[in-house]
Amino acid sequence: MSFLHGIAASNGIAIAKAYRHVDQDLSFEKKTIDHTDAEVERFNAAVKKANSELEAIRDRAKVDLGADKAAIFEAHLLVLNDPELTGPIIDKIYTEKVNAESALSETADMFIMMFEQMDNEYMRERAADIRDVTKRVLSHLLGVQMMNPGMICEEVIMVAEDLTPSDTAQLNRQFVKGFTTNIGGRTSHSAIMARSMEIPAVVGTKTATEEINHGDLVVVDGLKGEVHINPTTEVVEQFRKMAEKYEIQKAEWAKLVNEKTVSADGHHVELAANIGTPNDLTGVMTNGGEGVGLYRTEFLYMGRDQLPTEEEQFEAYKAVLEGMNGKPVVVRTLDIGGDKELPYLDLPKEMNPFLGFRAIRLCLEEQDIFRTQLRALLRASIYGNLKIMFPMIATLDEFRSAKAILEEEKQKLVSEGLQIAQKIELGIMVEIPSTAILADQFAKEVDFFSIGTNDLIQYTMAADRMNQRVAYLYQPYSPSILRLVKMVIDAAHAEGKWAGMCGEMAGDETAIPILLGLGLDEFSMSATSILKARSLICNLKKSDMEKLAEEVLTMQTTSQVIEAVKYTTK
Amino acid sequence: MSFLHGIAASNGIAIAKAYRHVDQDLSFEKKTIDHTDAEVERFNAAVKKANSELEAIRDRAKVDLGADKAAIFEAHLLVLNDPELTGPIIDKIYTEKVNAESALSETADMFIMMFEQMDNEYMRERAADIRDVTKRVLSHLLGVQMMNPGMICEEVIMVAEDLTPSDTAQLNRQFVKGFTTNIGGRTSHSAIMARSMEIPAVVGTKTATEEINHGDLVVVDGLKGEVHINPTTEVVEQFRKMAEKYEIQKAEWAKLVNEKTVSADGHHVELAANIGTPNDLTGVMTNGGEGVGLYRTEFLYMGRDQLPTEEEQFEAYKAVLEGMNGKPVVVRTLDIGGDKELPYLDLPKEMNPFLGFRAIRLCLEEQDIFRTQLRALLRASIYGNLKIMFPMIATLDEFRSAKAILEEEKQKLVSEGLQIAQKIELGIMVEIPSTAILADQFAKEVDFFSIGTNDLIQYTMAADRMNQRVAYLYQPYSPSILRLVKMVIDAAHAEGKWAGMCGEMAGDETAIPILLGLGLDEFSMSATSILKARSLICNLKKSDMEKLAEEVLTMQTTSQVIEAVKYTTK
Repeated sequence: MSFLHGIAASNGIAIAKAYRHVDQDLSFEKKTIDHTDAEVERFNAAVKKANSELEAIRDRAKVDLGADKAAIFEAHLLVLNDPELTGPIIDKIYTEKVNAESALSETADMFIMMFEQMDNEYMRERAADIRDVTKRVLSHLLGVQMMNPGMICEEVIMVAEDLTPSDTAQLNRQFVKGFTTNIGGRTSHSAIMARSMEIPAVVGTKTATEEINHGDLVVVDGLKGEVHINPTTEVVEQFRKMAEKYEIQKAEWAKLVNEKTVSADGHHVELAANIGTPNDLTGVMTNGGEGVGLYRTEFLYMGRDQLPTEEEQFEAYKAVLEGMNGKPVVVRTLDIGGDKELPYLDLPKEMNPFLGFRAIRLCLEEQDIFRTQLRALLRASIYGNLKIMFPMIATLDEFRSAKAILEEEKQKLVSEGLQIAQKIELGIMVEIPSTAILADQFAKEVDFFSIGTNDLIQYTMAADRMNQRVAYLYQPYSPSILRLVKMVIDAAHAEGKWAGMCGEMAGDETAIPILLGLGLDEFSMSATSILKARSLICNLKKSDMEKLAEEVLTMQTTSQVIEAVKYTTK
Repeated sequence: MSFLHGIAASNGIAIAKAYRHVDQDLSFEKKTIDHTDAEVERFNAAVKKANSELEAIRDRAKVDLGADKAAIFEAHLLVLNDPELTGPIIDKIYTEKVNAESALSETADMFIMMFEQMDNEYMRERAADIRDVTKRVLSHLLGVQMMNPGMICEEVIMVAEDLTPSDTAQLNRQFVKGFTTNIGGRTSHSAIMARSMEIPAVVGTKTATEEINHGDLVVVDGLKGEVHINPTTEVVEQFRKMAEKYEIQKAEWAKLVNEKTVSADGHHVELAANIGTPNDLTGVMTNGGEGVGLYRTEFLYMGRDQLPTEEEQFEAYKAVLEGMNGKPVVVRTLDIGGDKELPYLDLPKEMNPFLGFRAIRLCLEEQDIFRTQLRALLRASIYGNLKIMFPMIATLDEFRSAKAILEEEKQKLVSEGLQIAQKIELGIMVEIPSTAILADQFAKEVDFFSIGTNDLIQYTMAADRMNQRVAYLYQPYSPSILRLVKMVIDAAHAEGKWAGMCGEMAGDETAIPILLGLGLDEFSMSATSILKARSLICNLKKSDMEKLAEEVLTMQTTSQVIEAVKYTTK
C-alpha cells in the first residue's frame, strides 16, 4: 500500500478500482507491403470498427449528456468518413506500397500540420479532431484497446494527468465513483466538475498516474485530500466506516433542505447556487438552493460551431426562470475570453488572456452578440424573478455603456409590443480590484454586487490561479482580499443595495464565518455545498462573527486569519 | 500631405525624411542548375559579403552601444561561419543541382524547425539567429539591399510596425531624429527607448508603414501625438518654429538643473531617475536627477548566455553608487519573468506570464541567483548611498523571507571580514494591489515604498498594458488607482517612512499635481522628464494640490479627474 497527498477538490470518500485514463502506446514501424489490396482491406476494416465504436459513444453521450456534448463525436464521425482524408491514405498504400499505419499517420500528419498552421482557432480544433480520429483508427490497426471512458461499465476511480472538458463529457456518471489527477487545484475544471457530479475528488497529486496501476484498489478521500493505493483490508474497512459516517452527516444536512438559512442569533442570509445549464436545476432543488446566484451563460455558446440564436437562448433562460419558480435567478451575461475560447469567434491569441479582451470588454465591442443575449433575457424576464449582471466591469463608463445598450433593447422590445418584467435588477460582478476599490461610487448606480472571488483573488495577488508555480499566492483569506470584500459589502449597504458572492470562497467553510461577520447578504456556491454551508451558518452567531471579522481585517497574513477562524469556531 | 494620429510617446518635434524599416521582398524561384561549381561560388560570395557587412555592424554597435548590445552580431557571425550550416547547403547544390537560394532556404528551414520544436527558449533564440542570417545571405544572392538601420548616415525619421529591442540596439543615434510606429503605447519598449534617446516619438498610429513611403518628408509631433506626411512648406515652417520654441523651453528647464525641487509654497520633494545601466548616469547628471529611484538590474542579466558573476555585478553597482556621489540609489533586485525572459534560465512557458513566476517569486525559489546579487550589492554598499528594494512583493511572508536571505548573506560577509555600509534602507515595490491594500501592515516592517504604477495599473484594472484591445483600461488617473496611491503614502507616513513612485506616472504632467497633493516624497522617472517635472512642481502650491487630491479621490471616472487637474492647474 502507498499513499498520495493532493488537494481536496470535492467532498466524500470513494473506494473502487483504478481506471487509468492515459495515452496508450500506438507506435509502429513503417513497412513495405506487397499485397496492397489486402492492406487497403485492413485499413477499411479498421475504419469500420472505429465507426461503430464512435456511433456507440455518440449515442450514449446523447442520452447521458445531451446533444450539445455529443456533438464532438458527430464531428469525429464526419472526419472519419471524409473521402478527402481516406482517399489519399488508400492512394498512398497503392502507390507507395507502405503499410496502412504509415499511410494513415503520414497523411493525417500532413492535414494536421496544415490546419494547425492556419491562424484560426476553428481550424486548429479540426486538427485536434483529426488527431483523435487517427488515434482511434490506429488503435484498431494495431489491435490496441483504446481507453473509452464512455464505455466503462463497472465502478471505477478515474486516474488521469488532468481531465479536460472533452474527457468529462465522455464520463459515464453511473460508474465513475471518484477522480484523482496529477495537476489542477480547487478551481480547475476537473474539480468543479467533480463537485457538480457530487463525487469525491483529489486533484494536484503530482504523481497519481505514475503511482497507480490500472485495476489497483484506490481510496479517494475527498475530505482530507488523500489517496490510498492498495490499502490493507483494515484500512479499507476504516474508510468504509468513514464513508458511512459521511453519508449519515449528509443525511443530517439533507434535513435542512427546506429550511431558511438563519444564524444562531436570528440573522437571515440567502444561499444560492451557481449553475451552467437548465439541467443543473435538479441539483439546486435537491440541495435546497434559495435561488440561482450565478447562471454562467457561456455554456450556451460553447461546444458548438456557431453562436446560439436569440430563440435558443430565450428557451434556456425561460427554462431556468420557470424551473426556479419565482426564486431569484442572477444571470451573468456572456463571459468569454480568458481561459474560455469560442472557436467560431476567432479571437486573436493574447499574451495574457486573463488580462485581455474578454467578457464585457468583448460584448461592448461585438454588440450584435451582446444585444441578442439581452433581447433573449428581456423576453424571458416575465417567466420568473430575473436579475442581470455584467461580468468583468472595471469602470463606471463600462457599466453605463452596457446599461445603455440594455435600455435600448428594452425600448425596442416594448415598441414591438413584447412584454417585459416590470422590475429587473441590474448588477455587476466585482472581480476586478478597481471595482472593489470604487464600490462606493458603483453602488450609487447598480442594484447589486456579486463578488467573483476566483478572479478577484488572482488579480489582487497578481497570480494566475491556473499556474502551479504561483499557486501559493492564491490566498482567499488574505487580509487584503477580506478588506476588498468589506469595501464592497459596506458600499452596497450604504446605498441600500445587496451584496452577494459567487466565487468558490462563498462555499468555503473557513471563509463563511468571516463573510457572515462582514454582512454578506447572499452566498452562491456549487449546489452540493449548500446544505453543509446552511448547517454551518445555523450554528454560528452573527454577533460573534462580526468581532471575528473586525479582528482579521487588521491581521498581517493568511495563516493568522486561518488560525483566528479555527479558534473562534472551534 | 496627409496626417496620422497616435500616442505621444516622447516629447519634441522632429522633421526629416522617412526611413521605412520594414521586411523586404526576398522571394525567389526554385531552379535547376547545371553549373553547380559556379553556383557554389555564387553562394560563397554572398556569405563573404554578409560576413563583412555583419562585422561592420558589429564594430559600430560596439562603439555606439557597448559590447553587450554588439553580442547579437557576434552570434550572427558564428552562425554564418558554421560549417554545420554551410556544409549541407553546398552539398545540396551539388547533389540536387538546385540554385543557391533554394539550397540555403530549405536547409535553413530544416534547422529552424528543428530548433523551434525544442522546448527550450535558448534553442528558439538560435532559430531566430539562423533566420536573420539566412535573410542577410539571401539579400546578397538576390541583390536586394537589406535595411541596415545601423548604416543610416543621414537624418531620418524611423517608420516601423514596431521597434524591438534588437532593432533599437542597431540604431545610429546620431542620425535617427524621431520614431513613428504602427503599434505600441506610452509604456512599450519603443516609447521608453525614444524617451531615453531624447527623440520625439509617436507610437500606435496603426497605419504609419502603410501611409508613409521611404523618403517622404515627415513631421513627428511628439507633443501632440501627430504625424504629418509631406506637409506644405508653410506647415513645415510652423513646425520649425514650434520646434525652436520647444528648444527654448528646454533651455529654460535646463536652468533648473542644479536647483532643488520645491513647490511654490516651500514643500520639497525629490526627483530621481530610472536607470538600466551605469551608462545612463550621464543622463541623470545632465538632467539634474537628485538620485536614482529605480536601478533596473535585469539589464545586467539580459542579452547574454549565462548569469552575470558576483564580480561583474559588484562592478556595475559600485560604478552606479560612486557615479551618484553619495546621492541615494535605489536598486531593485532582479525582476525577470513576465515579458522579460532570460533564455539561459529556460523558464517554463506560462499562459499568463504577467500573472506568473517572476521577480521575487523566482528569486525566492532560485536562491543561488538571488544570493549572488545580494552579496554583490552588500559589497558595493560602502561606495555610496545604497537602498535595496524587492519587486513584486504580494505578501508579508514574501518580504520576510527575502529579508531573511539578505540578513544571512550580510552575516556571512561580515564573518568573512568584508565591510558593509552601516545602514542600507530596505524597501519594496508596491505594484500588486494586495500590497497597496495592506500597506499599513507592510509599513511596520519596510523602510520605504516605491509604487510601480505600470504593473499596479494593469493588475488593478485587470488589463494587460501591452494588449491594444484593452488599452482603454490602462487608466493612471482612475480614482481607484489614486485611492491605492493614497493608501500607500498615508501608510508610509503613519510609520515615519517615505513613499516614492517609479512608474511612468511619476513623470506625467497630469499625475504630478495630484501626487504632490497626496504627499508623495520621491518621484522617479525617465531622466529626460526631470527638468520639466521640476519646472511644473516649482509653479504649484502644495496646499492647492492637497485640495485637488481630496476632490479627485471622490470622483467616479478618469475623465472627471483629468478635467479637474486641467481646471486647477490652468
